[in-house]
Amino acid sequence: MTEYIFEKSGYDPESVVTDGNRFLIANGYLGIRGTVEEADTSSLPAVNLAGVYDRHEDKWREPVNAPMGLYARLSFNGKACALGEAEPLTHKLAIDYGQSLFMRETGFGPAAISSERLASLAQPHLTAASLTLSFAEDGEAVLKTGISTDIWDLNGPHLFGYKYTPGEVLLCEAVTGEKSIGIAVSQGVSCSVQADEEQLTEQNGIFRELKFSVKSGAKVTVSIFSAVYTGLDTVEPAAEAVRLCGEAKRAGYELCKNDHTKAWADLWRRSEITLEGDPDTRLALKASQYYLNSIAPRHAGNLSIPARGLSGQTYKGAIFWDSEIFLFPMFAYTQPEVAAALLRYRIETLPGALKKAAEYGYRGAFYAWESQEGGTEGCTNFNVVDVFTHRPVRTYFRDKQIHISADIAYALWEYYRITGDRTLLEEGGAEVILECARFYLSRASAHLDGEAVDFADVIGPDEYHERVTNNAFTNRMIRYCMENALRLEQIFDDKKQMFGELLNRLDYRKDLELIKETIGRISPAKTKDGVTEQFDGYFDLEDCSLDTVRARLVNPREYWGGDHGVAGTTQIIKQADVITLMALFPDDFSEDEVAANWEFYEPRTEHGSSLSACMYALTACRIGRPELAWKHFVNTASIDLKGGGKQWAGEIYIGGTHPAANGGAWMIAVLGFAGLTVSDGRLGFNPHLPEQISKLVFPIEFRGKRLQVTVTHDGCDIAER
Amino acid sequence: MTEYIFEKSGYDPESVVTDGNRFLIANGYLGIRGTVEEADTSSLPAVNLAGVYDRHEDKWREPVNAPMGLYARLSFNGKACALGEAEPLTHKLAIDYGQSLFMRETGFGPAAISSERLASLAQPHLTAASLTLSFAEDGEAVLKTGISTDIWDLNGPHLFGYKYTPGEVLLCEAVTGEKSIGIAVSQGVSCSVQADEEQLTEQNGIFRELKFSVKSGAKVTVSIFSAVYTGLDTVEPAAEAVRLCGEAKRAGYELCKNDHTKAWADLWRRSEITLEGDPDTRLALKASQYYLNSIAPRHAGNLSIPARGLSGQTYKGAIFWDSEIFLFPMFAYTQPEVAAALLRYRIETLPGALKKAAEYGYRGAFYAWESQEGGTEGCTNFNVVDVFTHRPVRTYFRDKQIHISADIAYALWEYYRITGDRTLLEEGGAEVILECARFYLSRASAHLDGEAVDFADVIGPDEYHERVTNNAFTNRMIRYCMENALRLEQIFDDKKQMFGELLNRLDYRKDLELIKETIGRISPAKTKDGVTEQFDGYFDLEDCSLDTVRARLVNPREYWGGDHGVAGTTQIIKQADVITLMALFPDDFSEDEVAANWEFYEPRTEHGSSLSACMYALTACRIGRPELAWKHFVNTASIDLKGGGKQWAGEIYIGGTHPAANGGAWMIAVLGFAGLTVSDGRLGFNPHLPEQISKLVFPIEFRGKRLQVTVTHDGCDIAER
Repeated sequence: MTEYIFEKSGYDPESVVTDGNRFLIANGYLGIRGTVEEADTSSLPAVNLAGVYDRHEDKWREPVNAPMGLYARLSFNGKACALGEAEPLTHKLAIDYGQSLFMRETGFGPAAISSERLASLAQPHLTAASLTLSFAEDGEAVLKTGISTDIWDLNGPHLFGYKYTPGEVLLCEAVTGEKSIGIAVSQGVSCSVQADEEQLTEQNGIFRELKFSVKSGAKVTVSIFSAVYTGLDTVEPAAEAVRLCGEAKRAGYELCKNDHTKAWADLWRRSEITLEGDPDTRLALKASQYYLNSIAPRHAGNLSIPARGLSGQTYKGAIFWDSEIFLFPMFAYTQPEVAAALLRYRIETLPGALKKAAEYGYRGAFYAWESQEGGTEGCTNFNVVDVFTHRPVRTYFRDKQIHISADIAYALWEYYRITGDRTLLEEGGAEVILECARFYLSRASAHLDGEAVDFADVIGPDEYHERVTNNAFTNRMIRYCMENALRLEQIFDDKKQMFGELLNRLDYRKDLELIKETIGRISPAKTKDGVTEQFDGYFDLEDCSLDTVRARLVNPREYWGGDHGVAGTTQIIKQADVITLMALFPDDFSEDEVAANWEFYEPRTEHGSSLSACMYALTACRIGRPELAWKHFVNTASIDLKGGGKQWAGEIYIGGTHPAANGGAWMIAVLGFAGLTVSDGRLGFNPHLPEQISKLVFPIEFRGKRLQVTVTHDGCDIAER
Repeated sequence: MTEYIFEKSGYDPESVVTDGNRFLIANGYLGIRGTVEEADTSSLPAVNLAGVYDRHEDKWREPVNAPMGLYARLSFNGKACALGEAEPLTHKLAIDYGQSLFMRETGFGPAAISSERLASLAQPHLTAASLTLSFAEDGEAVLKTGISTDIWDLNGPHLFGYKYTPGEVLLCEAVTGEKSIGIAVSQGVSCSVQADEEQLTEQNGIFRELKFSVKSGAKVTVSIFSAVYTGLDTVEPAAEAVRLCGEAKRAGYELCKNDHTKAWADLWRRSEITLEGDPDTRLALKASQYYLNSIAPRHAGNLSIPARGLSGQTYKGAIFWDSEIFLFPMFAYTQPEVAAALLRYRIETLPGALKKAAEYGYRGAFYAWESQEGGTEGCTNFNVVDVFTHRPVRTYFRDKQIHISADIAYALWEYYRITGDRTLLEEGGAEVILECARFYLSRASAHLDGEAVDFADVIGPDEYHERVTNNAFTNRMIRYCMENALRLEQIFDDKKQMFGELLNRLDYRKDLELIKETIGRISPAKTKDGVTEQFDGYFDLEDCSLDTVRARLVNPREYWGGDHGVAGTTQIIKQADVITLMALFPDDFSEDEVAANWEFYEPRTEHGSSLSACMYALTACRIGRPELAWKHFVNTASIDLKGGGKQWAGEIYIGGTHPAANGGAWMIAVLGFAGLTVSDGRLGFNPHLPEQISKLVFPIEFRGKRLQVTVTHDGCDIAER
């Protein structure tokens, strides 16, 4: 297991933000940033809660960070043994990707701290830490530990009305500002030595001070347990938090850890890809899978995954198309119940999408570009801040990135296509597809004197080019949405009455006819020399190199897109766009066509989004060029391990982990290198292993069967597990 | 006549650019900026030619400035008596608006120069100056005079292959770079004293040095004549230039001046508005009329007037909608032959408009936003330079300001409506209207599931809001264009065969049917509390004051419009938009409606364009509130006299005279204060004199009759002249 432990030695305050992402532990319910126990807000500590949102004043709406129940600060003989207050002699952070454990070792000379921390996968409301304090001198130690409400927020504060209750289990209660959602955090402690305990209620939390005398060479172990519940989980979050914390304390840290690591072992059995190749790549892929697996919503059947996971409030904790197009495949093939949860989130937030469409004067379902709870749109009209004027810039992600609805319809259809399970379609999925198709009917631009139907004034995946017409990806996705809306009739051939009632309830029969008339009229993509034009007029834009465009930047944090950005008026694109189209619709394009487009677009792509590289890698495999995919695979898989990715868009912080890249790494390995396909309900493999990998082994769950797939350069073996 | 002389005393190098505009003399063929005889390029001297364009390399295409044939520099006793080289003791510039004479008086102590300059209205190729040199000491004077090719260009150089021919008449020939159009400038001189003459051919022109001895108290008069011809005028520009110059010299300055001032007297008889009121406003109105009358194309029946007249190369010397909407009315009511020339320019450039439409994939005629010769589009996709990055900014004037075609169709119809003369319609005008309507048919956005026809992604008169949908002004103009396309059939009821052949030639019969089906479907303007919404969603924009928006500027030269501009995302508009609609379609709106819109939009208008104030003034008169119009009238009429108006748009210089404001001042006086209307071929007056004016007298030509209109607070009197 030690193979999958990543360590970083040395104390570097500069990288505290990146390390907070890199050493994140999470369990789908919450994520604890990889900061040390004694961290104050300057280190950006956070217990980030999934699906709990709040708006403060007129700032951006964002997920709520809970008070930190694992706070602990040591002082020894009157001197602080705490980062930021004392210079450490040694310092090491580590994360065990296999067991999902955060670890820390810091030596301050007379005393040293080593700790281990978990966010239980077995019990998502439970977090725990085990601290071992070692002393090289005789003396008096004070460990201040408790629930810190000194919370880091991007656009906060979000919690108000703090109420602190001392006791064996400490309790901190608060409510969110906007919707008065109750948040309860409890804390219990076990200590291996007899300690005097004093409880303190302070401005910034409730704490206990454990005081004890030690001899040189002594080791003291302190176990800390903290439970988190919100009013969205239960009507009595405080009571539940106190109860769970007491139980955990009685069970002890080792038992809690045991349940946790067992759950992770099960999870890895269901999802782990192992590759024979260089150790760095093995580690990177494991890490990548860890970052995604750790944030999957397993505690609820109707939640999705934010664009930066549970690593903080970046991107407003919102759900993007990442979920459907980049995260969905791994879950659909390994943990279909999670894939279903992602989609149920969309089914349940259909009312929000209907409302958004109506707001813009359209019929049907226009999903939020940045979806928060209930499908509320988190995206504002001013999503970038200009670095020169410090003024917000009007951006068009919210109103023009209309492919979002088709992306959701695509994933709903993929779920059915892959699993063969019609349940989701029956339980609201069909309605979503129909309402999405209806949105496009009303969004279309027809001509008075021509047959073509355009989708004008849109943004495709490449966000640098705003307000374009007939984005090839968008038009094809819309057509697929409409095609699937028509296919539903056939899918529900044996449930004619049910489907008929749905059509009646939605008053959809005329629209169904309209869809039939429209599908063939949607403007097809234009091509030139075998290359698909990204949108009408793209080929007329300035054709210059990425370096040329980069050299025009006056400020390194400038936003590249839109009319003012350096890329917006050139052929340089942010991320895979036509290539995403080709990755999602492999049957539409010949190998030659994909190759021509790959060669044209790849050098024109900044890969300024973590959603880009995997699409290039996937299509490289499809044209039998896995060597072209390798670089993108390594970059994609190692993005969070390395702490990479853009940190700034204009003046907005956008750092965090990259779930879409994590999902992308899985896609490259399984859909790309192994070449997994599903066609007419049957699995197929068309492997293209790059030379750097000698063997690839991974599990999948396919239509009730648990399979183990082994791919080598000699071929492919599928066995039932 | 002296009432209409404007003088400025004192030497102020800072205002040399503004003064160049203010003291401009012109005759429609050329304009000479108001700079002194010895000016070098740092003073931006120019002989700006109408309708002669050139592009240098990939810079903006712009009109050509001819070599300066009235150059003269005095030195006395070895010392320069020239601004920029010697500090003057006294200096005065003046312009006689009545006679169109530039005047200058500068005292350098030992010597003084006074001069008078004209650009002949009687003979448009002729310019002349009379210099009086006075000497306060005995000594030797040298006057260097000739043709200077030290030419000021914004985006030049434009002239190449200079050829200099000495002789009694000096000759300078050159050709333009792009199209090799020949330019010939000649110069001849008469001197009141015997002078030694030496001719010099230099790097920067051909000159003669006149040397003579003077006694203290002597006055020497030098008359200079210069003729300009181009290859667009004649096949032999050099011979013509030499001939005309010789003739003028023989006739002498006074005779030339006599012909010139006589022509101006005739012109004033046809067009001069006199008002009884304060002298400043009288002068301002005279000046305003002068600036417009002096640049009207009388030498050719198929030219229009650039947005900054003949004051330089600003705005690329291009023709904008200003011509049809702001300049046309004065000419239509006072000098219909000039009005017809403006429109013939559009009729003859129809091929350019057809080409531009095709370039964008549309049928019909999409006129150039900035039209140069042959209808060539001068507007680029990058018409503003960002002040922070110094990078060009993608602007949408070229591709989205589609109302231009309807503006032209509107003026064509106005010509017919006002004059009752069908000739222009017969001679191409009908075809223009039909092709413009056809353009809109193909530009329209229909819905798959609704009747409404939208015009999406356009820019209205208010250019700060780019890419909007259903701009109320644009939609109404388009509907009018279509209505008039349908009315043509009736107009040509007695020429059925001719009109039928036109329809056949244009393959228009199906389009005529389509127009009939479409007119009623064009989205009408939305209203709220009696206020017409400028475009879909305008009311949802931030509602803040002009001061608030101005306070957000980081750099005073920032461009206000577009997604990055301070105004683009607010309700603050650059210029009259809905109010222009109400000015152009008075019968569509009740007085109450106009009043409600006036009150709503006026405080939200920056008046950042010289096209704005007159529309507000016109509508203020229409609602019986001339007191609201007064401020706008004074500002509009005095803009060039004061040297006002914006000088910069981003980093682009946009200074010059303001023909549209000049035309606007006439409109306020005649269409606003006097309330002139034409309905069913009959004149009507509904005067609303502001209290500042006791009497307004003006001539008009209406359907062959020359009338004199006198308006007082007691009523209105119309007499034949």
